[in-house]
Amino acid sequence: MSRPLIRVPELVRIKAGALGRLGLYVGRAGLRRVVLLHSEGLLETILGAALHSLEEHGIAVGLRQTVRDASVEEAVRLLGVLPSAASAVVGLGGGKALDVAKYAASLAGLAYFAVPTSLSNDGFCSPQSSLTLQGKRRSLPAALPYAVVADLQVCQGAPLALWHSGIGDLCSKFTAVADWRLAFRARGTPVNDLAALLSDATVYQFMANPARSLEGIQLLATALLLNGVSMEIAGSSRPASGSEHLISHALDMTGARPRLHGLQTGTAAYLVSGVQGGPHHARIGALLETTGFWESVRAEPFSKAEWKTAIELAPGVKDDFHTILSERDAWPAIEQTIDSDPALAGCFD
Amino acid sequence: MSRPLIRVPELVRIKAGALGRLGLYVGRAGLRRVVLLHSEGLLETILGAALHSLEEHGIAVGLRQTVRDASVEEAVRLLGVLPSAASAVVGLGGGKALDVAKYAASLAGLAYFAVPTSLSNDGFCSPQSSLTLQGKRRSLPAALPYAVVADLQVCQGAPLALWHSGIGDLCSKFTAVADWRLAFRARGTPVNDLAALLSDATVYQFMANPARSLEGIQLLATALLLNGVSMEIAGSSRPASGSEHLISHALDMTGARPRLHGLQTGTAAYLVSGVQGGPHHARIGALLETTGFWESVRAEPFSKAEWKTAIELAPGVKDDFHTILSERDAWPAIEQTIDSDPALAGCFD
Amino acid sequence: MSRPLIRVPELVRIKAGALGRLGLYVGRAGLRRVVLLHSEGLLETILGAALHSLEEHGIAVGLRQTVRDASVEEAVRLLGVLPSAASAVVGLGGGKALDVAKYAASLAGLAYFAVPTSLSNDGFCSPQSSLTLQGKRRSLPAALPYAVVADLQVCQGAPLALWHSGIGDLCSKFTAVADWRLAFRARGTPVNDLAALLSDATVYQFMANPARSLEGIQLLATALLLNGVSMEIAGSSRPASGSEHLISHALDMTGARPRLHGLQTGTAAYLVSGVQGGPHHARIGALLETTGFWESVRAEPFSKAEWKTAIELAPGVKDDFHTILSERDAWPAIEQTIDSDPALAGCFD
Amino acid sequence: MSRPLIRVPELVRIKAGALGRLGLYVGRAGLRRVVLLHSEGLLETILGAALHSLEEHGIAVGLRQTVRDASVEEAVRLLGVLPSAASAVVGLGGGKALDVAKYAASLAGLAYFAVPTSLSNDGFCSPQSSLTLQGKRRSLPAALPYAVVADLQVCQGAPLALWHSGIGDLCSKFTAVADWRLAFRARGTPVNDLAALLSDATVYQFMANPARSLEGIQLLATALLLNGVSMEIAGSSRPASGSEHLISHALDMTGARPRLHGLQTGTAAYLVSGVQGGPHHARIGALLETTGFWESVRAEPFSKAEWKTAIELAPGVKDDFHTILSERDAWPAIEQTIDSDPALAGCFD
Repeated sequence: MSRPLIRVPELVRIKAGALGRLGLYVGRAGLRRVVLLHSEGLLETILGAALHSLEEHGIAVGLRQTVRDASVEEAVRLLGVLPSAASAVVGLGGGKALDVAKYAASLAGLAYFAVPTSLSNDGFCSPQSSLTLQGKRRSLPAALPYAVVADLQVCQGAPLALWHSGIGDLCSKFTAVADWRLAFRARGTPVNDLAALLSDATVYQFMANPARSLEGIQLLATALLLNGVSMEIAGSSRPASGSEHLISHALDMTGARPRLHGLQTGTAAYLVSGVQGGPHHARIGALLETTGFWESVRAEPFSKAEWKTAIELAPGVKDDFHTILSERDAWPAIEQTIDSDPALAGCFD
Repeated sequence: MSRPLIRVPELVRIKAGALGRLGLYVGRAGLRRVVLLHSEGLLETILGAALHSLEEHGIAVGLRQTVRDASVEEAVRLLGVLPSAASAVVGLGGGKALDVAKYAASLAGLAYFAVPTSLSNDGFCSPQSSLTLQGKRRSLPAALPYAVVADLQVCQGAPLALWHSGIGDLCSKFTAVADWRLAFRARGTPVNDLAALLSDATVYQFMANPARSLEGIQLLATALLLNGVSMEIAGSSRPASGSEHLISHALDMTGARPRLHGLQTGTAAYLVSGVQGGPHHARIGALLETTGFWESVRAEPFSKAEWKTAIELAPGVKDDFHTILSERDAWPAIEQTIDSDPALAGCFD
Repeated sequence: MSRPLIRVPELVRIKAGALGRLGLYVGRAGLRRVVLLHSEGLLETILGAALHSLEEHGIAVGLRQTVRDASVEEAVRLLGVLPSAASAVVGLGGGKALDVAKYAASLAGLAYFAVPTSLSNDGFCSPQSSLTLQGKRRSLPAALPYAVVADLQVCQGAPLALWHSGIGDLCSKFTAVADWRLAFRARGTPVNDLAALLSDATVYQFMANPARSLEGIQLLATALLLNGVSMEIAGSSRPASGSEHLISHALDMTGARPRLHGLQTGTAAYLVSGVQGGPHHARIGALLETTGFWESVRAEPFSKAEWKTAIELAPGVKDDFHTILSERDAWPAIEQTIDSDPALAGCFD
Repeated sequence: MSRPLIRVPELVRIKAGALGRLGLYVGRAGLRRVVLLHSEGLLETILGAALHSLEEHGIAVGLRQTVRDASVEEAVRLLGVLPSAASAVVGLGGGKALDVAKYAASLAGLAYFAVPTSLSNDGFCSPQSSLTLQGKRRSLPAALPYAVVADLQVCQGAPLALWHSGIGDLCSKFTAVADWRLAFRARGTPVNDLAALLSDATVYQFMANPARSLEGIQLLATALLLNGVSMEIAGSSRPASGSEHLISHALDMTGARPRLHGLQTGTAAYLVSGVQGGPHHARIGALLETTGFWESVRAEPFSKAEWKTAIELAPGVKDDFHTILSERDAWPAIEQTIDSDPALAGCFD
């Protein structure tokens, strides 16, 4: 009997100072010529450190481009200009640039080095890219990175709200797994228990030290990385994405202002876990409280009306995707939480 | 660039009542005829539940055997009597029986279902079997299980000392990873960071609820399971086994009485982590304290003289395996801890 | 030590009547809803047989589209319109439609069924798609098909010139492998001997019965299929594509009229093998003679002037790709063959 | 949808002079210390060449042993004496020694280099070892070799009868595949068409030059090697072993004298293919005639009485293994062929 085979990154470096060793890691993999795709508005010091390290180790940068927008069309444009002699793509920056870089590398069949400069979501090591195609948001399969290089000092220096966003995205694993198990009971959706247990475990292990210290950031990076592995094991995004992501997608489609993905999914996970029942609501609450997550929400409160709409639309966002929202009208319970939970004071207008 | 491919179990069920569904799981995998290999002295209720479930789902048990001793010779004997029509091996019971069953299934190329009745070590899902060969203890490669079925109620009912043993084995991941990183700095031993981070994460996640409740036992089972996966990723036992395991092996070779593996490795991890430095000594201490681990040690205290001998022998137990014990004489510091650490009062004679 | 892992098609059916069982094969794979992408101008009887078989076995065709041109842009367009409920893509028809269908399925992460209606080249089961991107011809990585369903009667009924084209493409494996070994000696290009031996073997096995009978067509289909596997083993197109393909690419770029790929590569393989030396020139000659290959060339003779230009351009078509053409000016020897080899009488203007 | 992943050897060298480069190949794989297991009675020149090449490239031979008998017990004995520092096993010699060496390497989880000195059967690269266990012949799963190094000059110098044996083993692929397809029609035994087509193709490609020249021997080695790959694809020995192997096994169990495996299977394939019908009987006949196969049989004729017994016993040799012999009493037709086929004159007593 064969057992499933999953790909994992060949090289992982999650440590302080990793950016300054980027060239060393690329060179050790036997690569000599790379393409660098990075975020717009990336700090000059970060870009400079990456380029310096590559140069120092004799790695030629055959092409350097800013990623303009997170679309399949942009990835295909980049595919068209990749020099034929390049043997790897380095994606440097935030979530959007990395999604495009990962997709372009996957199309070209090249080794991909994910070098996140913040930890705002779990996309840097997932087997999908979230991109628009013909203007519509899609989640498309992409190869897991060949390498993940996360410099803890760089990530520590990213804006506080991005850290909160990563924590929010992480909390949504609890609700995603609960929805997955619900879908099994309600509709027989197959659950891969290994992926589900691993996904839950990523939240638990972050709870051991949910601080913005180097160690705490290493735990967060590890958690988000292992989430990518759990999606690879599951062969789907189910272990990482449930009703809380449906709500976030619906907010993206209908809300007035774009907000950080993880602020949306984290808040939604808190609300949905209350409806799902069980001990996770309190755990998510404690984690968000401890880390000051709500401060980042309060800085620009959500619209209660928009959330009401989003929660109504959420069950229809994906075909054949059963969650707690397929089973009951969650709005009354959620509205009550929004109105009366002291933790949420000031988080909604 | 290719990325490594790792095998993971196809089917994982870690839940209350899983034993009563064993036949269902076997049948769903399309298997109709199995061999059952189990521990000596297994509770009749557990054996009966397994047989009943298999029968209920129409699974024929072509052969049922008690595993006599944990040796390659015993596994080869079982290989010789496996009926040719069997399509899977079910291993039921404790660590030794499961190591033999896993090895025999691996030799025969059959699907293997690991059904642990206690969680006393991380062997139920590891890619090795610890067996004697010609009377000498060896760690031999074996295929990861096709399936892991851990009934949380059954495991909860196992003797307290076995639970403590599993916790002790888990704590040794912290020291094993620290030794691995040390071996990289001292001798260039390659470290697979993904495996190292995953191995550390298994301890952190158990710390979220280190109780003998069903949830706590699920966390422990998940932790030990993921350790097997980390060894598979690493292609070695390095993420799970360091100087604390060397000490335990030396105790097995020279000590007067055999003791539970995890009581030895857990105690050794506590002692060694103090020599390694860093925050893990305190973490291990807190975990062992919280769970009452030392009570199981005190029930039959270790011999200080035997430990002294074992710690001296430990660096020579494996060829080319650098650990903290290769760097310095740890005994003075360890002796002081044994003599003066209040946590250890009554643990050593 | 790990050994390489290669993917091979899960399901292969190369037999008379396979088209009428397409629905059976799709259904057996547990798929219920497919997208059908097919060639323009496909015979109604063939399209009808496919649709009938799918319907007969309860497979819904969620979308049916004609592939317009062999471009990445067309594949991305199709990706955008794939219904989300589809679980597989069926590509039906000739080489171009299949290249696009394979690429679109690969982008979408869906199972892909290759159903070639002729055997004019080895693309139906290769791990690449030959497509234009921004107007430029590119060879892009694509997943090997999940299934290959080749109906021998349908392929037998395809125009004679397409059969000759497949034979020509097959013969070029001899010259491709010889060029690969040359590149090893000249520049250290690594050769995967298993892929090289398999690629050569595909030609040898077709020589056992190079007829347009059902058995002969089965041998040709098997040969081209195994070439795809050899490329998968090699991780490159080297075992299947050498100097003869460079010439063909150069002809495509500069020639006045597009010609069948395999008529170009087969003729080029015959010419180049004479320059390479060894027994393959005679073998290719015998195979092309026996099968009447030159008749299809004579039906529309090549331009000697265009070939001269193409052979001069060929070494520059790919970067860092050493072949016999990198080593010497082959034109004088080739011109003499064109002018004086009786086999080629009437093949060049 | 996942496609199956198969392992193939990482390194293949099938060329004249390969033995003298053995140390180079081992060294290139990054290995420094090997164990050499070889046949009893191996020519000193061959053993010397291997040792010289290893020494020349700085490869230490940590242990050198003669393989005593082809048993699991012998492989386990060798496992027990393998030095822990060895990183590879080199098997040098004939079929039996290589089967044991492959199995011992597989048990130890070490890289295995198969260095056959003759091509008398397809075992040097198959995913099984044919060994006795507790005195009973068994076919047990073993890892495919990491490397196959076949020196064509060495194999050319092996006794003529061994070459004939390899050809006989190769011919049995035709009958094995025919039996497999029969088992599908009669009992639904699943057929992997890719493996079946590849297995047939190995015979066809040898037919291109069935000579004892270097090229002919390369074709034979390639054919037998690809048979190992076809078994790996199939996940069973079905593409390589059918009723002709059952007869050979029955002869081994009941016959008075042991004979070369391939002389038995080749003769059985010739006889059985006549009962199966179709064009393969004539093809096998022509191949055996051309290569002088029958001369090696006539040197020590088979016993007609023993064959009669073997053919009667054959259907019962393996459980649940349908072949042409399950369907009819083949003896009358086979006896007539033995008695009247001029090709077989002198082959049976």
